[in-house]
This record gives sequence, C-alpha cells and structure tokens, in this order.
Amino acid sequence: MQALRERIAREGRNLGKGILKVDSFLNHQVDAPLMLDVGREMARRFANQGVSKVLTAEISGIAPALTTALALGVPVIYARKAKPITMPANVYCETAPSHTKGKMVELLVSPEFLGPADRVLIVDDFLASGQTIQALARLVEQSGATLVGVGAVIEKSFEGGRELLTSLGVPVESLVVITAMNDGQITMKDD
Amino acid sequence: MQALRERIAREGRNLGKGILKVDSFLNHQVDAPLMLDVGREMARRFANQGVSKVLTAEISGIAPALTTALALGVPVIYARKAKPITMPANVYCETAPSHTKGKMVELLVSPEFLGPADRVLIVDDFLASGQTIQALARLVEQSGATLVGVGAVIEKSFEGGRELLTSLGVPVESLVVITAMNDGQITMKDD
Repeated sequence: MQALRERIAREGRNLGKGILKVDSFLNHQVDAPLMLDVGREMARRFANQGVSKVLTAEISGIAPALTTALALGVPVIYARKAKPITMPANVYCETAPSHTKGKMVELLVSPEFLGPADRVLIVDDFLASGQTIQALARLVEQSGATLVGVGAVIEKSFEGGRELLTSLGVPVESLVVITAMNDGQITMKDD
Repeated sequence: MQALRERIAREGRNLGKGILKVDSFLNHQVDAPLMLDVGREMARRFANQGVSKVLTAEISGIAPALTTALALGVPVIYARKAKPITMPANVYCETAPSHTKGKMVELLVSPEFLGPADRVLIVDDFLASGQTIQALARLVEQSGATLVGVGAVIEKSFEGGRELLTSLGVPVESLVVITAMNDGQITMKDD
C-alpha cells in the first residue's frame, strides 16, 4: 500500500531493538483519512470471506479495525485488557505477552457478541511475534466462531509472527512488510 | 440523534449506580455504521469551529473520535494512559479519577502532535462527572492550543459534568442526554 509505505519512509523512526515509532499517524495521533484507506484496502483483501465481525485488541488495533469494519459494513469487537463492570461474569479469556508492559496481559471478549454463527476477521496494527494475534485466534476458537483471516497494517517479518500463524490455516495479509530494522534503518519489502 | 436514542432504548441496560451498559454498540462491540453517523453528526455540530485536531482519551473514546475526525478530515489524537516506549521523555500529563479502576489515571499527550497553532475538539463516549474531559482540556491548555468545543456521544446529565465544564467557555454538545437512571429505567431527554 503505497501511501502507507511513503508515510513510514517519511515519518517512521527506528528506535532500536525492533521498536518502530509510527505514532504520528498510527497509534497516538491517527491520520483519519489514511486510516480510512487502510480499512478499505483491508476490506478489499478479505472481500470474499463473508466476514460477519472484525476482532481486534485494545488499544492501537481499534482504529484500523474500525475502518475495516466500516468498509465491510460489519461490527467490530475490541478485546478488553481489563474487565469492565459492564461485562458478564463468564467471558472468553486468553493471555498474551505484552512487550511494552513486560508481562502477560489478558484479552477478554464477552460471549454476548461472538458465537458459532460468526465469521471473524482479526485486524491489528502490527504483526510482529504474532502472539497477540494468536491469542485473539484462540478467543475465536473458544467462541465456536470461524476465523477467516488475519490482517495487519504493518508486519515486521523478521520477528517470525507469520510462521507462528501458519497453523491457523487462514490467509494472513499485511499492508506493508518491514524486512529489517538495522543500524537505524527501516527496510521495507517492495509491493 | 434518533438512531442512537433508539439503540439505547433497545439495547442499553441500567446496571445500577449510574452504570449504563452499551457495550453491544459503543464500547466493546462497536456498530461501525452507527459510529460513522455519530461522527458525522458531531462534525456537523462543530463545522464552523475551524477544528484542526480531535482529542480523546483511550480506550472507548477512540471509535467516536476517529469517525468525527474522518468527517472533519483532520487527525485524531488519543491521550495514552500508560507511556509507550515510543513517547519522548517530556510529555503533557494530567490526571483524572477513573470510576472503573477506582484510582487516578494519567492522561499523556506527546508535544510533537499538539501545539499553539491547533484548534482542538475534544470528543469522548460519555460525559458524566466531566473530570476526564476536564483533564483533556487541561492538556490542551498545557500545549498552548485553543479548545473550541467538547462533544460527547452520551451525557448523563444527573452526574453534573456539564456544570463542571461551563468554566471552559466552549460549546458542549451531547448526541443523547440521559436525565435519570432510577429503578432500572433509562430516561432520555427529548431531542
């Protein structure tokens, strides 16, 4: 996706240790029109999958998942990391390691909103180690719904997430693939 | 906003103690097309304010703030509650009490994205006590930007937030006003 590649090239910063700063347009400040295009492109790639729900994890997955859901005309669910008082006692719960928090975090989804009739597209901002997305896939499995695909805005292919997700047996799409982050550089795969 | 009123009447649940369950369309599962309409209505109400940035607080403010930003064609910033590794050392920081966490939470915005040239519209899912929105307004003040308005998807007028925000001297708009939540009922103000 050319507009996104250009944005990463212009504003992305390699902070070392695989950390990519893209908070001017993706995960603190969000470029709303760009995010709309991200959602449309994601929807185009999964147009024939009969998606009934988009699933993401709070916090930074919400923006691209919402615009994908808008383009598909379906609801989006964001898995909560803390249980709100409005959630029922029994919820789907999985855990995933958080890089930023340095510990395991819970991902919670209410059974009210995900069930066997659903065809679920997982969308997240990053595909890195793949462990958050794998936890979301386990939530889908718990609910009895069918996982139909995984979409990431940015993939860091050198962290091996795609290999981890192979066992899910569904299409995995990334809008931009970063193949290396060495010496302060950001190397992107050609489209 | 009629579609939102109907949705609250049909799916909203009064859980007692002023807690309104609207997680089937607003803050866990999000009805994406409804949220697009929410954003358009919010943008219509602040169309003449020369808004350059929409500001909200993570987590549940993100969806309505993003669709408002989409309708206005401007970026949205979500204040972070924990400092990501990608944020600079010096940030704008304010605190607000969290009902769900029962303690004070921090709201952080990077100075990279908010400054004296900005005209800021604050958008959040709820206007209740008004303290989160007041903290966001203090962040705007810290940055030197101009606050031009406050928009909430749902106002619980019996919690007094609107009175607290009067001192900001800007228009405060809510798409639906809930005037009472007694005996399991949800009483909404007529449009």
